[in-house]
Amino acid sequence: MAEIPYKIYLSENEIPHAWHNVRAVMKDKPEPFLNPETFKPSTRDELCNVFCEELVDQELNVTDEYIEIPEEIRSFYKMYRPAPIVRAYNLEKLLDTPAHIYYKFEGNNTSGSHKLNSAAAQIYYAKKQGLTSVTTETGAGQWGTALSMACAYYGLDLTVYMVKGSAELKPHRKAVMQTYGADVIHSPSDTTEVGRKILEQFPGTSGSLGCAISEAIETALKTPNCKYVLGSVLNHVLMHQSIIGLEAKTALDKYGVQPDIVIGCAGGGSNLGGLISPYMADKIRGKNDIEFIAVEPASCPSLTRGFYEFDYGDTGRTTPLMKMYTLGHGFIPASNHAGGLRYHGMNTTLSKLYHDGYMTAKSYVQTDIFDAAVQFARCEGTLPAPESSHAIRAAIDEALKCKETGETKTILFGLTGTGYFDMTAYTNFLNKNMGDYIPTDDDLKKGYDSLPKIQ
Amino acid sequence: MAEIPYKIYLSENEIPHAWHNVRAVMKDKPEPFLNPETFKPSTRDELCNVFCEELVDQELNVTDEYIEIPEEIRSFYKMYRPAPIVRAYNLEKLLDTPAHIYYKFEGNNTSGSHKLNSAAAQIYYAKKQGLTSVTTETGAGQWGTALSMACAYYGLDLTVYMVKGSAELKPHRKAVMQTYGADVIHSPSDTTEVGRKILEQFPGTSGSLGCAISEAIETALKTPNCKYVLGSVLNHVLMHQSIIGLEAKTALDKYGVQPDIVIGCAGGGSNLGGLISPYMADKIRGKNDIEFIAVEPASCPSLTRGFYEFDYGDTGRTTPLMKMYTLGHGFIPASNHAGGLRYHGMNTTLSKLYHDGYMTAKSYVQTDIFDAAVQFARCEGTLPAPESSHAIRAAIDEALKCKETGETKTILFGLTGTGYFDMTAYTNFLNKNMGDYIPTDDDLKKGYDSLPKIQ
Repeated sequence: MAEIPYKIYLSENEIPHAWHNVRAVMKDKPEPFLNPETFKPSTRDELCNVFCEELVDQELNVTDEYIEIPEEIRSFYKMYRPAPIVRAYNLEKLLDTPAHIYYKFEGNNTSGSHKLNSAAAQIYYAKKQGLTSVTTETGAGQWGTALSMACAYYGLDLTVYMVKGSAELKPHRKAVMQTYGADVIHSPSDTTEVGRKILEQFPGTSGSLGCAISEAIETALKTPNCKYVLGSVLNHVLMHQSIIGLEAKTALDKYGVQPDIVIGCAGGGSNLGGLISPYMADKIRGKNDIEFIAVEPASCPSLTRGFYEFDYGDTGRTTPLMKMYTLGHGFIPASNHAGGLRYHGMNTTLSKLYHDGYMTAKSYVQTDIFDAAVQFARCEGTLPAPESSHAIRAAIDEALKCKETGETKTILFGLTGTGYFDMTAYTNFLNKNMGDYIPTDDDLKKGYDSLPKIQ
Repeated sequence: MAEIPYKIYLSENEIPHAWHNVRAVMKDKPEPFLNPETFKPSTRDELCNVFCEELVDQELNVTDEYIEIPEEIRSFYKMYRPAPIVRAYNLEKLLDTPAHIYYKFEGNNTSGSHKLNSAAAQIYYAKKQGLTSVTTETGAGQWGTALSMACAYYGLDLTVYMVKGSAELKPHRKAVMQTYGADVIHSPSDTTEVGRKILEQFPGTSGSLGCAISEAIETALKTPNCKYVLGSVLNHVLMHQSIIGLEAKTALDKYGVQPDIVIGCAGGGSNLGGLISPYMADKIRGKNDIEFIAVEPASCPSLTRGFYEFDYGDTGRTTPLMKMYTLGHGFIPASNHAGGLRYHGMNTTLSKLYHDGYMTAKSYVQTDIFDAAVQFARCEGTLPAPESSHAIRAAIDEALKCKETGETKTILFGLTGTGYFDMTAYTNFLNKNMGDYIPTDDDLKKGYDSLPKIQ
């Protein structure tokens, strides 16, 4: 076998021609979405009120394992893909571990993250359907940036509701979206009913993804020729992100490398779901025994401390009900520098896989995360996003376990993005001016009480 | 011939094993540096007072065309190289031009630019010599970031004098350097004699590269076991950057592509010099007739309006005298968002080649630059640095000329870096809050009068 280089790049024609839909392989499927009034499964027509038709079809598709990627989307992908697999030789050396560490790096594009993979797909389908504009929400700003790039490329208008706390921490992230032509509004805002209501109830709130989603949906519903698009949580988004896992597996297979552990950060779940997708299918088929680890912030621990229940996807209760691990849509997560992980719920497919024992989860406080981030930046060069650094933290800990036991495990993690727009957070960390927040049982109880009562 | 992909990546073992030293090929060499007191050529010993020994040897080497890259530096390069050649298919389509446009993209690393190529080399040699710290200056912040990454990797301490105007425009750039462990000081500062003098003379000044260089040299001279390192201007830096041109040529040769025009932005000259190096050698040998174009800001036009004279490299008159195109070390360039191009002089090799007619130069005002930058970002995805956007502007103009004449010229330009830390500038441009400044003949006269009188 050839020596493994620092970076494994595929060639352009090795960019996958189809996405992978892990639900097709699952014996027990995730529960379908429910209409919150009738408690019956949401119909295609109901979903098409809010979302693009082709995306709804993908959302409802639990039978086709592969769905072809249109050539127009592959052309977009060619601007920044394939994304490399990196062997973390320097990190291994620093930790003095027998483990082999690999990461799939999705940050080498202007959006700075994997979000572009789904943005390109969604805006292509929106255009194909004849829409002229879309709305969305953004937390850390990576999804909003990705979408503004896709809208500039395909020629659609875009309104982004950006979580206020993130917008204030990252004015430059907002400026990038504006450079690509997007209209960026701080959420909660007075442009929507739900925003006005939340502002009235919680005047000082720094906002949340759940709230921004409600505002974006409300605006899409009242704007002609406009739909709402979402950067995570939904199954079609997770499927678009399977390109991460497909490329990772193709690249590693070339060198005969099979991971023992696959790690991803988990907010809404799309990056983690995309990374593990083909490997998980093999596990379900009994072909491997990989340990999958979801890593989340201790301040927003939907998998590790949440409830597997039907819940709304947003604070404003405008979405269908989804059976998922959730802290309750009424749970307002504490301010945290990993804005992209501040979400009360979790994708239904991942929730089901977790519930059925196919993967594990763990959580960390943010100072532990930034400690890993700085260590990684200094030895591997790349300055990671706070979200991605959750995966780094867990990978380092697994590698240190190997050091103790002497095992040569192969660890693969997803480095979803760069932290160039998170320098306020880094500065706070370096100045020891960063707090850690863990919700109390009472906080969780309040979230639980917000869950809808299914009849 | 195979169809040309969007991105041409070389494999890891195709990273060059030697740098290219174009001076070895030049029939008329650039003039040697002069001691400003004796007006005799600077000796190796004199230069070693300020610079690392091995770098001085490279600086003085005008005979060896190739200089081997040590394995320890190639290991560092492997973290972020090879850097791709990109075919600007989307830009060509947007411009509706018959021209073929390629760019060598050096921004896919945390420093955000090509500067890392020389930073790695210089810090490796500093460590080899047994130094424990280095000092430097930075304008746009790209060089300082690159150097802080190299110092973190090789384990040296670093003090960065950052041009005050840039530091205030880009606090996040400063935070990246601090994350990598650097000590960042705004220049002019009160930590040096020259800084205090300039502050006294020009209390409101936003600083300049020339002034920051003086401060960094002064500090290096008074600190034990410490030398000064420089990110551009000098010939050894230009030689380290030849890796850009060598990779570009190797990649394009694979597809039988020979550029008709090669374009680079020019501040101190290292990126441009590195990009053109192997192509220029062939031109000198009569093997091609490429048009080389240096692009500079109209506010700091050293090639297009400067004088080919001996001058100091810094405002504080601490460097040797260099025969170069210069606006005079006393010229203080107007504030401009391309901080990396605010330098009064130009590398001596490029100056000589320009003087001897081997290349041409042009200048643009900054609103024209940002206009090209936004256009490029929206169609090619990557958000460019203001410095790099000078090359984009010229490439677009050349492509538009081809549209008029119907010629299918092949244009190669250097996209040296990303603009993620330049969002204040982009915001100013989008808000039509950006001024253009062109020095008057009187301004130039004042600069000329500051030139040393050689006896």
